[in-house]
Order: sequence, then structure tokens, then C-alpha cells
Amino acid sequence: MSKVAVIMGSRSDLPVVKKALEELKFFGVEYECHVMSAHRTPRLVCDFAESAKSNGFGVIICAAGMAAHLAGIVAGHTTLPVIGIPCSGSSFNGLDALLATVQMPSGIPVATVAVDGAKNAAILAIQILALSNEALAAQLSVAKRTMIDQINENDRKLQTELEDL
Amino acid sequence: MSKVAVIMGSRSDLPVVKKALEELKFFGVEYECHVMSAHRTPRLVCDFAESAKSNGFGVIICAAGMAAHLAGIVAGHTTLPVIGIPCSGSSFNGLDALLATVQMPSGIPVATVAVDGAKNAAILAIQILALSNEALAAQLSVAKRTMIDQINENDRKLQTELEDL
Amino acid sequence: MSKVAVIMGSRSDLPVVKKALEELKFFGVEYECHVMSAHRTPRLVCDFAESAKSNGFGVIICAAGMAAHLAGIVAGHTTLPVIGIPCSGSSFNGLDALLATVQMPSGIPVATVAVDGAKNAAILAIQILALSNEALAAQLSVAKRTMIDQINENDRKLQTELEDL
Amino acid sequence: MSKVAVIMGSRSDLPVVKKALEELKFFGVEYECHVMSAHRTPRLVCDFAESAKSNGFGVIICAAGMAAHLAGIVAGHTTLPVIGIPCSGSSFNGLDALLATVQMPSGIPVATVAVDGAKNAAILAIQILALSNEALAAQLSVAKRTMIDQINENDRKLQTELEDL
Amino acid sequence: MSKVAVIMGSRSDLPVVKKALEELKFFGVEYECHVMSAHRTPRLVCDFAESAKSNGFGVIICAAGMAAHLAGIVAGHTTLPVIGIPCSGSSFNGLDALLATVQMPSGIPVATVAVDGAKNAAILAIQILALSNEALAAQLSVAKRTMIDQINENDRKLQTELEDL
Amino acid sequence: MSKVAVIMGSRSDLPVVKKALEELKFFGVEYECHVMSAHRTPRLVCDFAESAKSNGFGVIICAAGMAAHLAGIVAGHTTLPVIGIPCSGSSFNGLDALLATVQMPSGIPVATVAVDGAKNAAILAIQILALSNEALAAQLSVAKRTMIDQINENDRKLQTELEDL
Amino acid sequence: MSKVAVIMGSRSDLPVVKKALEELKFFGVEYECHVMSAHRTPRLVCDFAESAKSNGFGVIICAAGMAAHLAGIVAGHTTLPVIGIPCSGSSFNGLDALLATVQMPSGIPVATVAVDGAKNAAILAIQILALSNEALAAQLSVAKRTMIDQINENDRKLQTELEDL
Amino acid sequence: MSKVAVIMGSRSDLPVVKKALEELKFFGVEYECHVMSAHRTPRLVCDFAESAKSNGFGVIICAAGMAAHLAGIVAGHTTLPVIGIPCSGSSFNGLDALLATVQMPSGIPVATVAVDGAKNAAILAIQILALSNEALAAQLSVAKRTMIDQINENDRKLQTELEDL
Repeated sequence: MSKVAVIMGSRSDLPVVKKALEELKFFGVEYECHVMSAHRTPRLVCDFAESAKSNGFGVIICAAGMAAHLAGIVAGHTTLPVIGIPCSGSSFNGLDALLATVQMPSGIPVATVAVDGAKNAAILAIQILALSNEALAAQLSVAKRTMIDQINENDRKLQTELEDL
Repeated sequence: MSKVAVIMGSRSDLPVVKKALEELKFFGVEYECHVMSAHRTPRLVCDFAESAKSNGFGVIICAAGMAAHLAGIVAGHTTLPVIGIPCSGSSFNGLDALLATVQMPSGIPVATVAVDGAKNAAILAIQILALSNEALAAQLSVAKRTMIDQINENDRKLQTELEDL
Repeated sequence: MSKVAVIMGSRSDLPVVKKALEELKFFGVEYECHVMSAHRTPRLVCDFAESAKSNGFGVIICAAGMAAHLAGIVAGHTTLPVIGIPCSGSSFNGLDALLATVQMPSGIPVATVAVDGAKNAAILAIQILALSNEALAAQLSVAKRTMIDQINENDRKLQTELEDL
Repeated sequence: MSKVAVIMGSRSDLPVVKKALEELKFFGVEYECHVMSAHRTPRLVCDFAESAKSNGFGVIICAAGMAAHLAGIVAGHTTLPVIGIPCSGSSFNGLDALLATVQMPSGIPVATVAVDGAKNAAILAIQILALSNEALAAQLSVAKRTMIDQINENDRKLQTELEDL
Repeated sequence: MSKVAVIMGSRSDLPVVKKALEELKFFGVEYECHVMSAHRTPRLVCDFAESAKSNGFGVIICAAGMAAHLAGIVAGHTTLPVIGIPCSGSSFNGLDALLATVQMPSGIPVATVAVDGAKNAAILAIQILALSNEALAAQLSVAKRTMIDQINENDRKLQTELEDL
Repeated sequence: MSKVAVIMGSRSDLPVVKKALEELKFFGVEYECHVMSAHRTPRLVCDFAESAKSNGFGVIICAAGMAAHLAGIVAGHTTLPVIGIPCSGSSFNGLDALLATVQMPSGIPVATVAVDGAKNAAILAIQILALSNEALAAQLSVAKRTMIDQINENDRKLQTELEDL
Repeated sequence: MSKVAVIMGSRSDLPVVKKALEELKFFGVEYECHVMSAHRTPRLVCDFAESAKSNGFGVIICAAGMAAHLAGIVAGHTTLPVIGIPCSGSSFNGLDALLATVQMPSGIPVATVAVDGAKNAAILAIQILALSNEALAAQLSVAKRTMIDQINENDRKLQTELEDL
Repeated sequence: MSKVAVIMGSRSDLPVVKKALEELKFFGVEYECHVMSAHRTPRLVCDFAESAKSNGFGVIICAAGMAAHLAGIVAGHTTLPVIGIPCSGSSFNGLDALLATVQMPSGIPVATVAVDGAKNAAILAIQILALSNEALAAQLSVAKRTMIDQINENDRKLQTELEDL
């Protein structure tokens, strides 16, 4: 199975990105994680993106804030699916990062998830890899059922709690 | 190779969606396209999404405007990757559709592309399918080179044009 | 008199939703309250909404944040009036939830109240039920007069306070 | 059955409001429609709202643009459910009207629909009246089925159309 | 000299409004201050606004948050100049209050100041009254010079501070 | 009676500004109108604002778009009340001009009206001048009654029109 | 004197960019103009930016719309001053391009001008070059005086026009 | 080498502005720093801007919040390049300041950096001065390499940290 690359524009994005790493770990998906900046280390980003496929990566997750160019630039250098996590933390609470990530021109898509939505970025990567990996697909189905059980459990707890209202 | 499902919330979204269909056709990717509404035909949407995988689909592209719930609801009923196209045409030029598509809760990702970004939705679907289809991956590389040639050609034409400025 | 259903997309919405429950209790209106997610337990939501009328509900209040699809999906499955509470708590302070709740397509209205406006959602439900329940209507009139007295009392206190300015 | 009042802040809102009137007519719901301004004829608005219930109205629909105060002021003068239609047509495409309509303070709800969502305002009013009118409720169920048929019909037409793509 | 009326939609607006009262006091301008709500005590607001001129008021300052209707409704009931202070404190940090205050329809102006700009509301009222009161006008000129001295003094202090940088 | 100054940042603002001039003319208020730019002719603006009071002006109306600095700069040079008209016509439909006009710092108010709200700017100026001019105040009362008659007349016409619906 | 590079992300930006070229021509500043995309021809952009200084350029002007990454990426590859023109034309009228251009992370500035503000981008480039070119500085002073004359001339014409109002 | 002027509209902007001063100091660029307000000390601002060039300044950095007019007014009085720092701290987190700084009319550019982007304002000023100062240009190149080393160092640390995940 291909690996997932998780790169972030600044080390300050790590608290957000960690949720993606934990999810990948939970599903047993191999990943590499790097700090790499579209503006500060542009050559590194170009080289990483261009060689990602031949280095065994299947999906690249990019997290960045403000004028978030990382996902877009990576997408410009590869034909692998690229997932963008717009990070909040700017004056605009991530609206700048969301628009800078999602509003890509024709020809170069970035699969954008919610602001700070790192866990969903990982799940999306797993869904993509699961298309050619039935074991992973089965894990996703289990996770979906667990989610249903959790909500139902929450509802049961709520009923007890409401008796005391 | 898996098929791509392309569904739209309203037939008025067809002019946008067509660009996705043309791109899929160009790459020789099999697709089905349907009008189906999360609000008006909710049972149909649930059933379609739940059986999509067993019906041979690998990716589901959903296009919807305003309070765009289609992609999110489909994602709730499947573990396939779901791509959302927020459609403009409302009073808010697609800002409502963008936020209603991208801001998904933890556990249920929607891979969101730009407002009206149907062509990119198709390319993203193709990139996903290409992970297990080397011929398709090769086509994507060719398309990337063509894009470079086009820009270079545009630049050459521009130089002539600028002489007359 | 019909019951009111109050459902929330996530148990973390309870602090907001509680104000609706207290108001319904104060007016002696019977209610049921559940955690139920349009994305995580979609079948449950469909079933609940479709059988709400025959189960004795008259109004359904739905609280959800981010890409808030709950009210819209419930409205798609019933002809009962559906009231939507957009919850803040996302990066966009509820703007995403407001637009995802209120911008419904033609045919499927959601009666939207202010961001986190749970108390008003309850009052709106009571106003609706009061149309065929004169005792409830009388209670609403009393509540309106109480509100006036409160403001007048606040103004009297203010005058004393201002003397010390 | 109670009547529905439909009032608009300016006669220029009529093209929007007409869709509400047509829907009410289609369902055979009696209505009155007036031009009345919270700012220009405030006394008239107060008097109309205060006597609406005793004059046989069950729901009041208010349409206004810009700093849309009409629905809020009417709601301040009655305990009937009030539905607000934010009208576009300002520099802000109805964002001002939406916020001025929906962000009501605790105690005075306005059931807000989408910008220019007049048809949905009427359907919401009908849903409310249908709670104590089974014939109207039956009509709503029929309308919901018709909507489903329409979407299905649209999908069938689409299939033919797509053959020519 | 005419008095200034300062009214607020909710007593929770007092911390903002106080800055207006202090400024009026500093300039020796007589004022009255009241809690009064366009939605909760609408009749009171109408009566106050209609009789404001004959009661000796020259300017009315209105402070309100969220769907801030107070200034607009007061302006609808008087020909005195009305100054609106949009209060923050909602999910939208006062953007809702700003648009609901400033976007008034033709014929009914509200002189809007910055979000929470209570001090400026008072200065504007004083500038208006000063048109027919030379002593007040002289005070304003003094205040302007004081402001200049303050900035210059701040700049001098800054120079010392910067030496330690 | 003092004159009103009406200045605009660019001659392209004239179509908006004209509505202010017509209103002032209708009320018989003397005015002067100039093109004058805070950025292009800053010295002229400073001199005009500083001498406005001694030149017989009582109110200064400023219309400007985009980064609308005109009203703020004029307000910095005078103690007369300054009214700002944010002009649309930029990419942001006047949101930039609104915020640049209304969000003034403490000490320097600008009485801001709606985007392109030139007629209201004139009425506000007239309301201000009317404080010391009873004839003008009487005219404002007449205008208010005329507005009421107009709305009532519109409502009567609407009733006829609705018969044909 | 150094040359100015003017690059645009897509040839469709030429109508905007032309105003920059005309201004540079008017001032006699040598320039080169190219179509070059941060996403479609990323290697070209990197190479151009890295060699710009040694190729005789002093300032680089970049025009791009939507998720406008061009200026930011160029700035990442050079220490020359980079000027960004956010282009409108997207669903968000250039708000996306503005935020994607201006919200750069620490260390990599982009000197951003108004949406579609190509003429100002050129003037800024000229102001920068004029720091070490007195003739150019003199031209800028002349241009400033011409602007003043134009406004004054506009004001004179306005006076005649107003006589006919 | 020319000096850099750094002016701020209010002393409360100093914590933001300090980062610009530190950067200038680090690069050994001479600067002066002043508190000066476009609204409160307008004459001072005009005089400072008009004489800046003859007083040996090459670039003027202006920091201001809310309706940030400082940079625009300074730009109106000089032909030197003017850099604007929009300061947050208002209800709108600097969106008002950003639009009021960047949306300048044709003829008067302001080189705008990110909200609170003081360090980048300084770097931009240094890039401008470095065009005619090779030593400074060399320092910028060194700084760029240091930035690359830092990111690489961060990435190395991250790898160790991730082992413990």
C-alpha cells in the first residue's frame, strides 16, 4: 500500500496536524511527516512533490494557514491527489487559508477539508487508499458503525441527564 | 476500473456539472450522472450512496448550491471518497454552498473543490482512480505537460501582442 | 397538544440546546430530546423525521454547527414545521451554520433563528402550537407582559445607578 | 382556518413576494397582502401587528431588504409566529437583510427563510396552519410526492440529454 | 440648549454606553438615559421617540446589538437626528448590528458610528448641538487641541522608550 | 442658516451624490458641491475643512468609495458634524468604503449612512440644521407625512393589482 | 535602471495587467511581461524568480486571481521586492485573491495593491525604482501635480454642470 | 542609505510595530519612529509626509487600525513608496484596516502587507533599499538561507518528536 505524506508549512501547525497522524496510525497506514514551506523552502517543496509518487506516496496532505499556498504548490508538481487542511490562527480565523486552499484554478485540484479538519484529511486519504485495499475498506466500515454506536450511546446518556433537568 | 458517480441537487446545476462530465469523457473514465436532491428525494440519495460501492462506483462527485447538503449526506452513507462542488448562483455567490460543503464534522470528510470547480472535481476523481491504474496515471502526466505547453504558447502569443501595445 | 422534538447533531451542542428545553418546560410543553447526526446516524434521522408526525410531534427543533445539515435533512423527510438553530463554535462563529441552515432550496423551508438562539427556537415552537391552544396563547401574552415589566424595572434600576456616575 | 398576512416594506419587494402569494393561492390558504414600512409607517405596523390575531390571522410573513426591521418589529407586537424573508437588492445582496432579520434578541423570534425565499415562507406558513388542519396536511404530503416525481422526471430527461454529450 | 437622549436596547449594553454618558457629562451637556427595547417594549419606544422633540431633546443616541432595530425604529418616529451605536457581543462581533443600523432605507437616516463607538456618538451629538451654541463649539476646539497635545506627548514618551529598544 | 458642503472624492461619484443635492434643493437648503480628493488633492481638503465653519458651512457631507478616507480626513480638520456616504462601485460593493468610513477612532466621529445613501445624508444634514430652524423642522414633518401617504397610496394600488393575481 | 517584470497567472488577466504596462510605458520604464503560472508551470516560475535579479530586474509585479499564489511563490524565490495584484473575476470578486496575496507569513512579504489595481502596482514599482533615479522621481512629482490639476479641472466642470441641476 | 520612517496612528499599535523596528535594527537600517494620527494630528502628518524625502527618508511604513487612513494620507503627500500595516484589535480583527489600507484609488498606491505583518513591512522596506545597496542585498540573501536552515532544523526536530507519538 502507498504511504501518505503529511506536510505542514510551519511547525506551529503541529497541534492541528497531530490529529491526522493519530488517525493514520489508528488505521495502520504508513506515513511520513515533514515541515516544509512553499515560501521559505520552495525548492524543497518542489522536489518533494515531484518525487512523491516514485518515492511510494499515494496521497499528500498539506496543512497551512494564512495565504496557504502549500497544498496548491504541491498540487502543481504532482498528479497524486493532494488534500489541503486550511489552518486557523490568523486574524481571519482561517477564512484566508480556506479560500487560498480551495479556490484553485482549473487543472490543479486541491481536495479541501474544513478549517483545522486534520482528522477528516486523514480519513479522506484512507478512503482513497481503501479503493484498492479491501482490508482498509473493511476498517472504514467498522469505524462508521462505531461512530453510530457512539452517537446512540451519547443519546442514551443524554436521556438520563435530562431526567435531572 | 471503478466508475465515477456525478450527482447534482438540481438540474439547473447542469451547465456547471457538464465540465466534469467532459473531463471524465476525455480521460475515458466511465461515469453515471443523476439529478438527486438531499432535500427533495432524500431516500433516493440514501439508497444511491449506500449501494454505490457495490454498484461499482469508486468516487462520488456531488454538485449543489445554497445550503449545499448533498455531498455531506452522501458522505454520511458511504465510505467511498466524496467530492463536493459548491455551486454559485445564490445571493452569496457560492459562499453559502462552499461553507455548507467544506465545513464537515469530524469523521465524515468531503473533498471540496472551488466554487463551480467541476473540471477540477473530475480531475481529482481521476487522480484518485489513477492510484491503481497506471494508464490513467500516464494520461494525467501527459495532461500536465500539455498544460505547460499551453501556458508557454500563450506566453509566446502574448509577446507578439505586446509589440503592438 | 403535540409534542416538540429537540434534536442536536452532537452532544457538545447541549449547553446551547438546554435553553430551549428550559423554555419548553417553563411553558409546560411536552418534548423529547435526542442526539442524532445527519452525517453519522443518517438512517436514524430519516426514520425519526418520517415518523415524527405519527409519533405525536408537532414541531421539530434541530441544533447543529459548522456545515449544519441536520435541520435541512429533517425538513426533507417531514411536512411538519422544522426550526433550525445554527450553533457557533466553529472557526466562523456560526456563519457557516447559519448559511447552511437558512439558505434552503425552494420547497423545503427551515425556520431559522439566531446563532445559538435556542430560547427563541422554543418560543417559536410554542407560538406555533399556541395557534390551536388558547391556554398556551394566554401564557405567551403573559410572558410578553413580563418582559415589558422587566425592561421597565431595568430602566428604574439604571436611573439609580446613573446618579452615581 | 386562520388567514396569512403577507406584508412587505416597500412595493419594490413585490416580485419576490409574489411567489409567496402564488403558493398560498395554490394551497387555497386565505391571505391579505400589504405594503407597510417599519420606518415610514411605524404606527400602522404596530397597529396591524397588535390586532392581527383578533383579526383572524394565524401567521404573519414579512419581507424587507437592507436594514430589514419589519419582521422584528411585527414580532415585537404579537405572539403569532412571524416569518421573515430577507430581500436582496442592496449592495450586500441581502446579507444585511438576513442578519437584520435572523439575529433577533431572546424573547422575540423571527422564523427566517433564505434570502428572497418567498415560496418557502409560504410553505412554512402552510406547514404551521396544517398542524390543526388535516386537509392542508394532506395537500403538503401530495406536494412532497410531486416534488419527488419532478426530480425523478428531471433525472430521466437528463439521461436522454447526456446521450448527446 | 436641547438635551441628548441616550437609550439602549438592553442593560447589558451599559458598559459601552457609559463612555457616551461620560463624554456628555465632561462637556456639560444635559442628558437622559434609558433602557428601552424596539422588540420588548415597542410602544414605549414609539411614544418616547414621538414626544422627544417636545420634551426638549435635540439628538437621540441609540445603542443596540445583533439585529439592532432600535435606532431605525426611533428614527421612524421622529425628525430629530438619530445616532446609532452598533454594539458587538454577538457571534458576528457587531457586523450584524452595524448593517442593521446603517443600511436604512431612503427617507429615514441613522447617523451610524463605529461598532461600540459610544464616545464618538456623544461627540457627534455635541458637534450637532454646538452648531447653535458657540460655547460648546469653543469647548470642541479646545478638546481637539488637547487631543493633538496628547499625541505629541505620546510621541515624546515613545522616543525615550525607543532608546531602550 | 448655515450652508451644507457636499464633496466627493471623484467625479464618478456624481450620480450617487446628485440625490443629496436634489434633496437639499427640495428643502431650500443652500449648498456648495466640490470634487476634492483626500489622496490626490490633500492640501485642498485640509484647507477646505479647516475653514468650513468660518466660511458659513454647518454640515459637511463627504462621498467616497473603496478605501474611503475623505470623510475621516475632513472630520480630522473640523469640529463641524461630518456625514459620510460610502460609495459602492468597487469589487466589494461598498463594504470597503463602509468600513473605511464608519470605523473611525475615538475622538473623530463620522456620521455614516448606508452605502450610496446620498438622499439620507442630505436628510440627516437637514435634520441637524432644523434643530435651530423651525421652518425647516416643519418641512421635515410635512415630508414625513407625505412618506406615509405614499406608502398608503402604494398599498391601495397593490390591492387592485392583487385582484388580478 | 533595473527593469520591471510583469507576470500574470493566466492570459485572461491581461485586460487588468495592461493598465500596469501602459503606466510603465508612460514613465519610460523598461519591462518584460509574461504569462506564467505558479500551479501549471511551477518550475518556470521558480527559475524566473531566482534569476530575476541577475537578469536585470529590480521589481516583480505579479497578477493572479482566485487562490492567487503567484506573487507569494515568486517572493519565496527572490529577495527583490514583489508587488501583488489580486485579480477579481472569481465568485468572490477578488476577496479570495486579496487574502491569498496579502496574508503572507513572516519573512516573505508581498506588497499588495487593491483588487485589479494594476495601475497602482506600476506606480509603486516606479516609486521604488525612483529612489535611485532622480529623473524618475521628478516625473512622479510632475504626475502628482497633473493629478491635482485634473481634480481641480473636474471641479470647475462640475460647477458649470451643477448650474443646470 | 536613506532612512526608514515608521509611524503609527496610536501608541497602542507599538507592540505590533516593534517587530518592524527590531527587523530594521537587525539589518542595520537607520529609522525614525513616531506616533502621528491622520485624524488627530492631520497637519503634522501632512508636513511629515511632504518633507520626508528631503529629510532623508526613502520608505515610509505606516501602521493603523480600524478605518486605517494613515498610510493612504501619507501616500497622498509624497512620491516615496509607502508601506501599510493594517492593525487588528477592532471588532473586525483587522478586516476594516486591511480594506481601508489596500483599496487605494488609482494614482496613490499603498504597499500593503498582512494584518499585523510588521516584520514583513520592515523586510519589504529593506528589499526596496537593497536595490541600490549591495551590502543590504547580500544580508537579505543570508537571511533567506538562514530561514531555510531553520525550517530544515525544525523538520529534523519534528522527526525525533514524532518517534514518541
